[in-house]
Amino acid sequence: MPDLDVSTLHGSLTDRALNSMNFLNEISHRYPDAISLAAGRPTEEFFDLDDVPRYLARFATHLRDQGLSEPAVQRTILQYGRTKGIVHDLVARHLAVDENIHVDPEAIVVTAGCQEAMLLTLRAFRADDTDVLLATAPTYVGITGAARLVDLPVLPVPDGDLDELLSAIKTARAEGRRPRAFYVMPDFANPSGLSMDLDTRRRLLEIAAQEDLVLLEDNPYGLFPADGADRLPTLKSLDTDRRVIYLGSFAKTGLPGARVGYVVADQTTADGILADELAKLKSMVTVNTSPIAQAVIGGKLLANDFSLDAANHRERAIYSANLRTITDHLAAHHGELSWTTPTGGFFVVLTVPFPVDDELLARSAQDYGVLWTPMAHFYNTPVNALRLSCSSVNAAQLQTALDRLTAFLTDQLSAATHS
Amino acid sequence: MPDLDVSTLHGSLTDRALNSMNFLNEISHRYPDAISLAAGRPTEEFFDLDDVPRYLARFATHLRDQGLSEPAVQRTILQYGRTKGIVHDLVARHLAVDENIHVDPEAIVVTAGCQEAMLLTLRAFRADDTDVLLATAPTYVGITGAARLVDLPVLPVPDGDLDELLSAIKTARAEGRRPRAFYVMPDFANPSGLSMDLDTRRRLLEIAAQEDLVLLEDNPYGLFPADGADRLPTLKSLDTDRRVIYLGSFAKTGLPGARVGYVVADQTTADGILADELAKLKSMVTVNTSPIAQAVIGGKLLANDFSLDAANHRERAIYSANLRTITDHLAAHHGELSWTTPTGGFFVVLTVPFPVDDELLARSAQDYGVLWTPMAHFYNTPVNALRLSCSSVNAAQLQTALDRLTAFLTDQLSAATHS
Repeated sequence: MPDLDVSTLHGSLTDRALNSMNFLNEISHRYPDAISLAAGRPTEEFFDLDDVPRYLARFATHLRDQGLSEPAVQRTILQYGRTKGIVHDLVARHLAVDENIHVDPEAIVVTAGCQEAMLLTLRAFRADDTDVLLATAPTYVGITGAARLVDLPVLPVPDGDLDELLSAIKTARAEGRRPRAFYVMPDFANPSGLSMDLDTRRRLLEIAAQEDLVLLEDNPYGLFPADGADRLPTLKSLDTDRRVIYLGSFAKTGLPGARVGYVVADQTTADGILADELAKLKSMVTVNTSPIAQAVIGGKLLANDFSLDAANHRERAIYSANLRTITDHLAAHHGELSWTTPTGGFFVVLTVPFPVDDELLARSAQDYGVLWTPMAHFYNTPVNALRLSCSSVNAAQLQTALDRLTAFLTDQLSAATHS
Repeated sequence: MPDLDVSTLHGSLTDRALNSMNFLNEISHRYPDAISLAAGRPTEEFFDLDDVPRYLARFATHLRDQGLSEPAVQRTILQYGRTKGIVHDLVARHLAVDENIHVDPEAIVVTAGCQEAMLLTLRAFRADDTDVLLATAPTYVGITGAARLVDLPVLPVPDGDLDELLSAIKTARAEGRRPRAFYVMPDFANPSGLSMDLDTRRRLLEIAAQEDLVLLEDNPYGLFPADGADRLPTLKSLDTDRRVIYLGSFAKTGLPGARVGYVVADQTTADGILADELAKLKSMVTVNTSPIAQAVIGGKLLANDFSLDAANHRERAIYSANLRTITDHLAAHHGELSWTTPTGGFFVVLTVPFPVDDELLARSAQDYGVLWTPMAHFYNTPVNALRLSCSSVNAAQLQTALDRLTAFLTDQLSAATHS
């Protein structure tokens, strides 16, 4: 058979977002000796293989306590199962405890990671080619990629600014386009690290009502405020009008290897709720989320009285200390540059006076042994900034990585000055 | 917020295929006392919760044997992982042992169930609105639904007949459409139960080469020939020209609750293989398949020297006996009707002289306590036939179900005669 011509395959395959994700995944394999301030994966410090059977057993006990017979327990965990999931009730209790979000468990669809939740939601809202999605720029590459997979254009809202949002809505409508939703990460956003203040959250909900817009709230990092920082209420907890679809992940707070996420979609339709429509789509994407994987997350929720806030105090301390180490290091060595000072989460964005692209990253990895992420991956355009992630290194690795970064930056700045 | 208008959401949500899947999933919950000859799920007879930690431990030992350090073992199973999967090499060995399929493990993408494999493949091949998929009619509702999700029309090929296939290709091309692939289940197909003979397989491969068509071979039931029946070679094992994309499932042969499937896509592109393109799409659908779930399947493969044929001898005996019980019962009690006599798999199709729809199924469930599947769900048109599945009942349940079916059929036939 002759070579397949990639140009005859779906356009997303030559899209920047999909190749970006791929590039970022591959580069760490290409430079195994480089320390990664690129990966947004959670710390492995407390990984324990025995957790898996322990959480499974905890969930099985819970099912027995609910009155299920032994065959029914086995069937629940080992057989094909409910499309919307088997830990929806436990997720609802977690949301009540940790997020002050109170929803009917039937409004929750448990998904194969939060990425599937995004895909299902965007698939539902992309009905014809006038539909568009609005998203904070810079934004998570996973939402851009999912949008591309369903041929949904993404209109950038610079820094999530609400006046920019209103202006983007107005322009889109004037062009005959239909803005369906606005994607935001109000807490310690990926990649900026920044959060929305309370007034902005309230105003955003007002704008959503006034403009008849759905808000897609993605919250993977909310449980990781840095030392002393207060947590702000999520949009969904402030939402009295079912304007917010809440995208949830357990990758950072539960266990990444479970690949379990969820979407809260309590919006009503003429004869049901949006969650049931998303479930229909899910039945054609993954049928149902592995009940074994769900049982692991369910067991962790049960073992921690539904509080992942409580379950993550050690992880939070690591991220918090690492975040401070990064900003302290930048202040001590690079006072001439500017960077964001997040109050939590995984990411710091450093702005530099020279172009930052994948080639420069490869040089940093090869010659200096440190990986970071060019911010261009989160925009549609080149930008002179890089993202530093604090989550996947221990204190010693971080210090070495920052020293290497300083050597790299010093050489780059010197070269930039002399050119 | 006002009710969402479903007509402003993606068209698939009002499509027959998606609601069909939903209906079939729901009806068994609505009539919990009815015995199901509808479900295509595997037998639960040998389910054992302890299998999960045992298989996990087996896979972890394998990783240690490969030289991985303890942190690396933990990272492999608990952290985010390789997009194409972590059991691809074990799957390749299984394919060599059980299917005489020999492929580079790099050509395998491990997926969140075979459904995701279908979705990724159809997404790749649906580039513009001239693209169409060909599929045997009747066909699996999951392929119809996945096609609908990516707006890819499905052209039916009656009973998978090869002359019909050639004619469908010709007509489509004359209409300016681009037939991208032909979806087939050559072994014990869902829903017909029938298999393609060896000559037909060879001729199909010739047609694919001649018409420059890709074949999508789906093989969930191939390891379940009934007593005495020989297994025929899969299309992929006969494929010397990389014409066949092989869709694999472990739901019936491994463990349904793992939700692990895969796709073999060794077709070349200008600078790589199709599997890598599918992986890019996967990174935006589910990121990666739960490594915990993959480890369970990997452990089962390791524990059985890569042969799921050997691992399933007890299950095969059950399906084989049940299949014979169904056809013997039909011969003894319904000699005036016609049905398929499959040489393996899960399904028998019974043709009757009265209309068969969802309403009739509801009556059968409610008044006779037996569930089956209207064949209309696998076509675009009504059809007077029903599908009986032998897989999810034990011998005693099956006998009761068949007696109930006979009561139902007798009443229906009598009513049909008198009307």
